[in-house]
Amino acid sequence: MRQSLANEINDLIERGRDRQLRLAVTGLSRSGKTAFLTSLVNQLRHAGLEARLDLLPAAREGRLLGAKRIAQKDLDVPRFPYDEALAALDGTPPRWPEPTRGISELRLAIRYRPARRGLFSNNTRELSLDLFDYPGEWLLDLPLLQHDYLSWSQSQTFAHSPERRALFADWLTAIENLDPAAEADESRLADIAALYAKGLGHAREAGFSNLQPGRFLLPGDLEGAPVLQFFPLPAVAQSDRTVLESLPESSIYQTLVRRYDHYLQRIVKPFYRNHFRHFDRQIVLVDVLGALNAGPERFEDLSRALGTLMQSFAYGQRHLLSRLFSPRIDRLAIAATKADHVTPEQHGNLVTLLEALLAEPLRDLHFADIPVKALSLASIRATQPQSVTQDGRQLPALRGTTLDGEPSLLFPGDVPPQLPDATFWQRQGFAFRAFRPLPRNNGVLPHIRLDTALDWLLGDKLQ
Amino acid sequence: MRQSLANEINDLIERGRDRQLRLAVTGLSRSGKTAFLTSLVNQLRHAGLEARLDLLPAAREGRLLGAKRIAQKDLDVPRFPYDEALAALDGTPPRWPEPTRGISELRLAIRYRPARRGLFSNNTRELSLDLFDYPGEWLLDLPLLQHDYLSWSQSQTFAHSPERRALFADWLTAIENLDPAAEADESRLADIAALYAKGLGHAREAGFSNLQPGRFLLPGDLEGAPVLQFFPLPAVAQSDRTVLESLPESSIYQTLVRRYDHYLQRIVKPFYRNHFRHFDRQIVLVDVLGALNAGPERFEDLSRALGTLMQSFAYGQRHLLSRLFSPRIDRLAIAATKADHVTPEQHGNLVTLLEALLAEPLRDLHFADIPVKALSLASIRATQPQSVTQDGRQLPALRGTTLDGEPSLLFPGDVPPQLPDATFWQRQGFAFRAFRPLPRNNGVLPHIRLDTALDWLLGDKLQ
Repeated sequence: MRQSLANEINDLIERGRDRQLRLAVTGLSRSGKTAFLTSLVNQLRHAGLEARLDLLPAAREGRLLGAKRIAQKDLDVPRFPYDEALAALDGTPPRWPEPTRGISELRLAIRYRPARRGLFSNNTRELSLDLFDYPGEWLLDLPLLQHDYLSWSQSQTFAHSPERRALFADWLTAIENLDPAAEADESRLADIAALYAKGLGHAREAGFSNLQPGRFLLPGDLEGAPVLQFFPLPAVAQSDRTVLESLPESSIYQTLVRRYDHYLQRIVKPFYRNHFRHFDRQIVLVDVLGALNAGPERFEDLSRALGTLMQSFAYGQRHLLSRLFSPRIDRLAIAATKADHVTPEQHGNLVTLLEALLAEPLRDLHFADIPVKALSLASIRATQPQSVTQDGRQLPALRGTTLDGEPSLLFPGDVPPQLPDATFWQRQGFAFRAFRPLPRNNGVLPHIRLDTALDWLLGDKLQ
Repeated sequence: MRQSLANEINDLIERGRDRQLRLAVTGLSRSGKTAFLTSLVNQLRHAGLEARLDLLPAAREGRLLGAKRIAQKDLDVPRFPYDEALAALDGTPPRWPEPTRGISELRLAIRYRPARRGLFSNNTRELSLDLFDYPGEWLLDLPLLQHDYLSWSQSQTFAHSPERRALFADWLTAIENLDPAAEADESRLADIAALYAKGLGHAREAGFSNLQPGRFLLPGDLEGAPVLQFFPLPAVAQSDRTVLESLPESSIYQTLVRRYDHYLQRIVKPFYRNHFRHFDRQIVLVDVLGALNAGPERFEDLSRALGTLMQSFAYGQRHLLSRLFSPRIDRLAIAATKADHVTPEQHGNLVTLLEALLAEPLRDLHFADIPVKALSLASIRATQPQSVTQDGRQLPALRGTTLDGEPSLLFPGDVPPQLPDATFWQRQGFAFRAFRPLPRNNGVLPHIRLDTALDWLLGDKLQ
């Protein structure tokens, strides 16, 4: 009895510690962050009643009683616009919600019954779940912390990609004859920086992901401030370092160095210090299908961008990030989104392709001993699978409504189970289409495997 | 000789101290800040050559050699968009520049020859002039520092103005049955705060100026953050203080208190701490004519808003502002802008009317021993005065082009030399029209008395 009582008390303390969880959602733009977070909140709000969450044990066992939105603690962080997102999805016709443009937050109080009841445990318990949504692009700035301006400049080479070079053509022309030793002219630097930002914008439009510095595309209140008016000088060489460093303060080179350093201090570090290091769990969303659709150069680029992005999670004890900010993310999910845009028998391939795409970061995570789970999901379903009979054979297909309102029945193509090779790109058997979201059913957004993600990300806290 | 040498050296040190001046320009929205700053930079850039600055002694005496834009020190503050403003003014047809939406900055190096040359003085000297432009609305938040949430709520009464009440009708309905003791619901508070901000927006549209909190109208990156989601509760009474303060943390009242306090810490104080206390000189622009045109209720409202705004300058040693931030503004100008919108013989009245409008703040400034000069000016001229003969009499008139491109010749009316009374409003003899800016002449923007403003604000530094 005594031992059992002590266990009980221990248990109570342990659970006390577990009463709060900070879960962050990220991904590059258009990876589906807003849809994911909207659906997650929607499912938890309807948990225990209408929601279908069979793969989450607490829900399957009827112990998950529901969730309520409560006031967030960070008064400076915009609220995640859940109501606005839901209003768009409930529109006639249903529309995808507007993407968020920075960090946003929402706090839920989840009520559940513990799996094992004891002497001191109340009948129900509460878990505070803080949800954060932030642009994956911000994580692309992590490597900047390992660079000074000169080495960063050199890492920004445009030689390997003719397409990228074309997108930055105006900027490349502008810096062609720029003498780093010349006296800095503020408006000229502003103009060149604007061309560089325009290049980044074009590149994003064209489907590229690996874009630095991340904040140039969403400047917010810093629009027009010198801290966002720098750019790399790919032509400078490491061997010139001594000469460059002895240039006067007013030179172009030194001005760019100052702004680069200020960017790190004012923008990159504060995100890690004020937000990132407080996250407990993280899910990274990846639009694998979109990249597959966009062709080999973008697919390669996504792979590089993800490699960079994932460095923020694969920190060991001696990692720069650990030394600077002691992050504490103890569990990670990576998810290929929009799984409903391919037929169900392709979902397995989608996961193995995601794993192949992230092979190197996954090895680093394994080495750093951060548990990670790869999955495919659809936060909000837009299609219904269907069988079609052709020449007497049953073929899988998808039924949905395109964004222009056309009903459509199609087979989008096979997802390669590993990194696609040249042959794959040559035959290019893809026809991923964008579809309208399906309407809510009984108040609940239809999804695929969102419950699997939930189980991995917070199931252990609902035991 | 010895004494003279010592004087020389002293002089040199003194002048060394004077090599930098931080000049701030403010005013409520549409008071003409962007036009003023654009013209000021333009005149100084052309000083010594094309600019007409006869009322600035350094220019009249040929000692002002010109000005060059150099890199600003604050990397986080957006650059004042001088080139964009000039491009708008140089358009076909000329357009007024886009208003700025927050603080912006620009640094000039002014070269001049001192009035008295000496042994050690160089032939020319340089003065660094840092120019800042910020919304006067931000200063309307100063009184918040003297209030806590409860007393602020009570100060926000809508009883005296039926028109104001109509503009805030939706919000007033929403708070009618709001129980301050009830549990706070984040989205409901957000909705009510949005109605309040909408009321502020309507009021500004309708020509009202006295709007708090100032940051609700230009939220920037804080859009959707709880820190901007509060509002007054005019119905709460001081006598309820004890009851209200004992309400739980999660009550509506306590939630609003937290957000109000956070607004002071996060928004109001940082502006005074990081910017305001570094300004050396200040000019406040006032659109007196616009208010006169808009009728008695707006005119009254402008008067109240200016009374509040000017409190930031009339600080004595024991003033709250002095205690908190030790500001150092040692000279102030107040200017009625758009003087070219009335005929020249009215300019005297314009100044006396401005002085009457600011009578109380001017007394406070006098008491606080801050030198202040009132003047009327047109930063960028839009009209030409002309004489018209009617019934054999010479009458003053203005010739200009309206914003739609109509050439127009008119007499806009008499400016009352003191605060207008009911009789004045009844006959309402005003026809202030908005005109297109006149094109640049030889590269220089045409102005009225900008040189007088310059002389007061920086003439002593160019001796």
